[in-house]
Amino acid sequence: MKVRILVSFKNSVLDPQGQTVKNALHTLGYGFIKDVRQGKVFEIDLKEIPRSEVEKVVPEFADKVLANPIIEKFSWQIIEE
Amino acid sequence: MKVRILVSFKNSVLDPQGQTVKNALHTLGYGFIKDVRQGKVFEIDLKEIPRSEVEKVVPEFADKVLANPIIEKFSWQIIEE
Repeated sequence: MKVRILVSFKNSVLDPQGQTVKNALHTLGYGFIKDVRQGKVFEIDLKEIPRSEVEKVVPEFADKVLANPIIEKFSWQIIEE
Repeated sequence: MKVRILVSFKNSVLDPQGQTVKNALHTLGYGFIKDVRQGKVFEIDLKEIPRSEVEKVVPEFADKVLANPIIEKFSWQIIEE
């Protein structure tokens, strides 16, 4: 089973990387870009474990290891059964 | 309109960050994790432009600015009309 976890800054947190990318895109002529937020993505391959277990442990380790819950939020989904 | 672009290493490219995350998760007892690949995600807010234009320019600037096509691949989708 494969899961995808997206980690990004909370909306209230400044994102200087995203800002830099936005400025670079503007300089290159892509002026229609209003905002860029950059984050991390983790694609994780799991051994066969029950789906209920996946739904328990993925948010657990995402919160503990992948995201810093003070400034970041995460979302996740199963991308391959 | 909002688009999400996922950038990750090509499968043939080593991903030391993902490896480190995998090892950390194993150490914490999540032994059922087979593999971790880490990448970047960009969530981009666009001014109102025609959808056909979006489909032309997003892959263009993703390839030019966001991903290094020698070692990285990207995928993208519209997440908000």
